[in-house]
Amino acid sequence: MVKHLIDFNDISVERWEKIHKLAVDIKNNPEKYAEECKGKILATLFYEPSTRTMLSFQTAMLRLGGSVIGFDNPSNSSVSKGENLKDTIAIVSSYVDLLVMRHPLEGAAMAASMFSSKPVINAGDGGHLHPTQTLTDLTTIMLEKGKLTGLNIGFCGDLKNGRTVHSLLKAFLRYKGNKFYFISTKKLNIPDYLLEKLKETDNEFVFAETLEECMGDIDVLYMTRIQRERFDSEKEYLKQKGVFILDTEKMEKAKKDLIVLHPLPKVDEIDIEVDDDPRAKYFEQAENGVYVRMALIMTLLSENNEELSYNFSEKRECSNPKCITQTERYLKTVVDEDDREFCKYCNHKLI
Amino acid sequence: MVKHLIDFNDISVERWEKIHKLAVDIKNNPEKYAEECKGKILATLFYEPSTRTMLSFQTAMLRLGGSVIGFDNPSNSSVSKGENLKDTIAIVSSYVDLLVMRHPLEGAAMAASMFSSKPVINAGDGGHLHPTQTLTDLTTIMLEKGKLTGLNIGFCGDLKNGRTVHSLLKAFLRYKGNKFYFISTKKLNIPDYLLEKLKETDNEFVFAETLEECMGDIDVLYMTRIQRERFDSEKEYLKQKGVFILDTEKMEKAKKDLIVLHPLPKVDEIDIEVDDDPRAKYFEQAENGVYVRMALIMTLLSENNEELSYNFSEKRECSNPKCITQTERYLKTVVDEDDREFCKYCNHKLI
Amino acid sequence: MVKHLIDFNDISVERWEKIHKLAVDIKNNPEKYAEECKGKILATLFYEPSTRTMLSFQTAMLRLGGSVIGFDNPSNSSVSKGENLKDTIAIVSSYVDLLVMRHPLEGAAMAASMFSSKPVINAGDGGHLHPTQTLTDLTTIMLEKGKLTGLNIGFCGDLKNGRTVHSLLKAFLRYKGNKFYFISTKKLNIPDYLLEKLKETDNEFVFAETLEECMGDIDVLYMTRIQRERFDSEKEYLKQKGVFILDTEKMEKAKKDLIVLHPLPKVDEIDIEVDDDPRAKYFEQAENGVYVRMALIMTLLSENNEELSYNFSEKRECSNPKCITQTERYLKTVVDEDDREFCKYCNHKLI
Repeated sequence: MVKHLIDFNDISVERWEKIHKLAVDIKNNPEKYAEECKGKILATLFYEPSTRTMLSFQTAMLRLGGSVIGFDNPSNSSVSKGENLKDTIAIVSSYVDLLVMRHPLEGAAMAASMFSSKPVINAGDGGHLHPTQTLTDLTTIMLEKGKLTGLNIGFCGDLKNGRTVHSLLKAFLRYKGNKFYFISTKKLNIPDYLLEKLKETDNEFVFAETLEECMGDIDVLYMTRIQRERFDSEKEYLKQKGVFILDTEKMEKAKKDLIVLHPLPKVDEIDIEVDDDPRAKYFEQAENGVYVRMALIMTLLSENNEELSYNFSEKRECSNPKCITQTERYLKTVVDEDDREFCKYCNHKLI
Repeated sequence: MVKHLIDFNDISVERWEKIHKLAVDIKNNPEKYAEECKGKILATLFYEPSTRTMLSFQTAMLRLGGSVIGFDNPSNSSVSKGENLKDTIAIVSSYVDLLVMRHPLEGAAMAASMFSSKPVINAGDGGHLHPTQTLTDLTTIMLEKGKLTGLNIGFCGDLKNGRTVHSLLKAFLRYKGNKFYFISTKKLNIPDYLLEKLKETDNEFVFAETLEECMGDIDVLYMTRIQRERFDSEKEYLKQKGVFILDTEKMEKAKKDLIVLHPLPKVDEIDIEVDDDPRAKYFEQAENGVYVRMALIMTLLSENNEELSYNFSEKRECSNPKCITQTERYLKTVVDEDDREFCKYCNHKLI
Repeated sequence: MVKHLIDFNDISVERWEKIHKLAVDIKNNPEKYAEECKGKILATLFYEPSTRTMLSFQTAMLRLGGSVIGFDNPSNSSVSKGENLKDTIAIVSSYVDLLVMRHPLEGAAMAASMFSSKPVINAGDGGHLHPTQTLTDLTTIMLEKGKLTGLNIGFCGDLKNGRTVHSLLKAFLRYKGNKFYFISTKKLNIPDYLLEKLKETDNEFVFAETLEECMGDIDVLYMTRIQRERFDSEKEYLKQKGVFILDTEKMEKAKKDLIVLHPLPKVDEIDIEVDDDPRAKYFEQAENGVYVRMALIMTLLSENNEELSYNFSEKRECSNPKCITQTERYLKTVVDEDDREFCKYCNHKLI
């Protein structure tokens, strides 16, 4: 296994299955693991607030008998004194055994991993990646359905901008025999590059303009929100929003063994009465996130990890204004080995 | 015992005495309890800052060998992303073993308890309730005086708006043979409904316009502050404020075994020289708050707790603009079983 | 040993050596000390943010098996409700076993220590003192050089205003046979009173206007930053700044066994490529800070400490507008016993 968890794809299928099994065993026998990380310290470096994710990681470490330091208030951190990311990571990684990092810029976690003497877990780098959410989503589907193939999986909401949707879909590219239902407006649908990949991997997919038309077919419904400002106009918003809101009426048309997931927090895209439907699994999903993170922490702390090497480029630079390389100017360009036109930090085009 | 601690009156006299005895034993033998909550996690959810109360709960949990997660900065929490209270509580209660909640709206802790799978302790809901302060106050009086009857108890300051005063006075309604001295301006005196209750329970009370006139009679003096803006005018403030400030001169007129309490923080209502008087017990009172909270945490975690049921109403709603039902609109009206005209969340009139 | 650590000079040379040896043993055998502070609680009271220092103390306490409470956000603390320092310290010190305090006003830690029932460690009081930084600096030099005498020690940057420089230099007054190189602009050089003390203690010193001219002579280079606004003009800044920036070119002229230190955070005063030079020891220095703080915590918690007494004065007061006595008006003037013209809190002139 690679030393850090920056991108879900850093984890092979075999490795993922091992983490999944460990997470399930932790869920069933938490007391077995209560001292696994005794004496170990986790740093939670949150350069932007994300209370839910931070509490989940803190709970995971405490449930393993470890302890936690960190910050969640960027204006209160040394960052405000102009220190670069490299120095912060170099020093904090000398204090602790493991780092979890949330940052508003894309590629920040990868940059951090290059300067860290301890494993780094990406807890969200801008709109780019959030691999422990994907781990949690897959674990919940596996727990509830017993398989990751042969499923009808609906994705509803803003599929164009949804980081968790893209990440989960990419993870599913490793499996076959699933059929995807993309439920959204035309303008907010899945990006073409992901559709291309689905075609390459022999996966089926269809588009739907309302939740209603496919509720009866779906085994797994992954809900996300469409922000009001994403619609073409306020008029369009008022006309359309209802078709993407899950309510008890729509739930009546669904399979008895449907499961409804949501990365949370949710606002109004799921009617509050759906919470009481036993098919609503998003709170269990959040709870599973703790077990998954416990399994991940144990795995990263226990293995002999290999050092990574990078393909640096001195001639090219990233075109993405939200890439970490734009503000931390000492970072060298790293070329993505899979496609040498792309930046390894943020997966945008190099120029 | 009921599952949560929302209102001091949730605790029967017998139960209170048990918690009191446990608190005293913890105070005398802290090492006996150092591992009582090993492996347990407390969440401190502070939707408004209250450093003192938060540190007291955190200390209590750590002294029992448990650990703590939480937030104290509402703008940094998921709340700012529009998540409702129900979801936050559902998820956090799946992470931890016990929740402590502070919230600016009245009834928020009760609302939280309805969606929590783990015990909830109310650490202040607006100006409404703060039951662990009352537990602390009673415990300190009991420790210092050995009884809760036959005492002359003075309350000084803003008795109209003082949440801790009202709550402590309600607790004393369970006991007899005490005489209360209400030391305040006419406009800031004890509300009529509390005076009515005192009469019903055969308790004596008198009014005083200065501290001085009753210093010699009092066994327990409970000090609070009158905020400058509560006086009729700046002129009135300057003229009157002195009579409600406790200083060494007034202490000279007091009994040798008087005890002075204050919920803290204090500002200028007690002269700093009084701190050195052995009869000033407010710092001990704050310290006792830790032992009381330890006893409460142990009690809530160890007992088989019953589920609560509620009298919902679909026809009525609360009239109080500061009630949690006004912002969390999915909350159903709950009728107070003792007086069906009142809201169970915040104890204001229903309409 | 005195009960608290307010000023580095509170620690005798013998005591310092004992702490140093303990820190080295902790560094080499951390597992030996993993339960040293089990059941103990440290409070980190940060009245102004200093993430690095706070994380360092928290790590130290956790690595000893203890736990931590505290605040790092003054606007969120009880302070904002107008509570005085005395009350906060009286109460928090009844909760915990040890206090670490950072405060924007000079003398605040000493004031805190007067009201604390537990040891207080000064983690920075305005621009005045920061003794654990000095402990860390000395420990790193001792670890790397094996001695604190017979060294050529360069101080570069803003030597007029640099708290860490003054404090380290004062600590070196206890040793002999060192030669100091002060590398700065004329306006930002070492204050005269420190030069006087150097002369009194038979220490050698020289001035340099560029790093370059003394790079070849120095054994220890202590870098600090000159803030842009400290230069006479923007023109002067642009002309001069380069001579005080350490880069690989200047490193080439240095001794093979030079060590470069920096209190961190650094901004641009050290070129980022120097980080990779094995002579750059500032990250190790930060790591050593944890071991030093562990040794200090153990020492303060384990010893029978004597109570301090103070020389109060009712006639005089401090002239320093940044002294804690200016805002906490109940504080009595304390006369420095070494020089009765000076305030013991902040070391400024009394009036």
